[in-house]
Amino acid sequence: MDQYFDRAMPGPETQLLFDEAKRLGIGFCLGYAELVEEEGRLRRFNTSILIDRAGTLVGKYRKIHLPGHAEYEPQRSHQHLEKRYFEVGNTGFQVWEAFGGTVGMAICNDRRWVETYRVMGLQNVELIMIGYNTPVSDSLSGETETLRMFHNHLTMQAGAYQNSTWVVGVAKAGVEDGHRLMGGSVIVAPTGEIVAAAETEGDELIVADCDLDRCKYYKSHIFNFAAHRRPEFYGRITEQKGVTKGP
Amino acid sequence: MDQYFDRAMPGPETQLLFDEAKRLGIGFCLGYAELVEEEGRLRRFNTSILIDRAGTLVGKYRKIHLPGHAEYEPQRSHQHLEKRYFEVGNTGFQVWEAFGGTVGMAICNDRRWVETYRVMGLQNVELIMIGYNTPVSDSLSGETETLRMFHNHLTMQAGAYQNSTWVVGVAKAGVEDGHRLMGGSVIVAPTGEIVAAAETEGDELIVADCDLDRCKYYKSHIFNFAAHRRPEFYGRITEQKGVTKGP
Repeated sequence: MDQYFDRAMPGPETQLLFDEAKRLGIGFCLGYAELVEEEGRLRRFNTSILIDRAGTLVGKYRKIHLPGHAEYEPQRSHQHLEKRYFEVGNTGFQVWEAFGGTVGMAICNDRRWVETYRVMGLQNVELIMIGYNTPVSDSLSGETETLRMFHNHLTMQAGAYQNSTWVVGVAKAGVEDGHRLMGGSVIVAPTGEIVAAAETEGDELIVADCDLDRCKYYKSHIFNFAAHRRPEFYGRITEQKGVTKGP
Repeated sequence: MDQYFDRAMPGPETQLLFDEAKRLGIGFCLGYAELVEEEGRLRRFNTSILIDRAGTLVGKYRKIHLPGHAEYEPQRSHQHLEKRYFEVGNTGFQVWEAFGGTVGMAICNDRRWVETYRVMGLQNVELIMIGYNTPVSDSLSGETETLRMFHNHLTMQAGAYQNSTWVVGVAKAGVEDGHRLMGGSVIVAPTGEIVAAAETEGDELIVADCDLDRCKYYKSHIFNFAAHRRPEFYGRITEQKGVTKGP
């Protein structure tokens, strides 16, 4: 058992990152594989933490929407074993007051699920930070790289607009175990428009001035939830998990 | 009180449409302002009905997400008084077996709300028909026409992909009370891709071969709800209507 994961953040390997960020007054979001003793046993989560400009740990999120499968599937060009190696996160979709606004986190496959954004939207989220690590191809679907990038951006842009929040999607790029990762990092405004985007599959820094006041217009008009939502007709969303055709 | 709205469909004004569609073996979806006596009083709903190829009325939907406001607002270039003239629909988001698959309906502003698509997605919807009537401008927001068309398509494309369903969005185009309507009718595949689109603001017929089997792949993989959804963390979606920051 690698004791590295069991240490609280920052551990010795990440202390330098925390120190340098604090020296520069830069907050950040960091994803990692978390090994923790909880409820009397060792547990593994796919985790992100949020650190403010002063170097203080503000929030922790454990990934809820684990994709893929739990057993080896030989027909795949690469395995997708998140359901084998991680437990479903137990933190829920929380938000935190930081960076002068209300901030939330999600991880990778969470970005494809409307509930991710909505649960945070209902807590007035203004900036959602999402790390992801997605290969350019899916050997089962035969999707083109272009279609997969379209889905990557479509879900984050819709999540931003429909909840009137900034969304920052940060990709791992490059090659992992011989498989190219899609990259495609973006900063999305509350209008759903991409205001900054990575252009290559290499290392890049992208920057945007995220005015959180830009969240206000849609939150108080077209997406004024208190005025327009009708939860009395949304029961299936929480009452059932999979598809049920009956009443 | 105009008795027209109080008659069951088809009324004398629409009988010709029903007859001609039946003669040609074409099913259709029809939106109208419904005036009905229910619960001992006259009620107004924004309604759509679904008619199959044999001319049989298959389903009725009454609009749930009424946008706008209930009182005159002089600062607007045009009024948006749906909350004044209609009641919130009481049918819920149902689906019907028709056209060889599972079909749902939504109306106009419903298309911007993730819950619309998800509640039908949880009933295995394969084709959602949406009529809308949206002006090119919003005098309060100052949005460009391009941004408003982007939102129109973004929400339908995301709803299609995230629920692996066809979405058919049919716009009223042309000029109404001196205000141009945006048009932009589209047929969206379960991949979220637009496969047919109107090109003008005039009358047009757009056509696509909607193979409902194309819904199957995502429904059984990336959007296999039974495998991947986590309703235990979605509670806010049905427990609260507006924004609440606390737990």
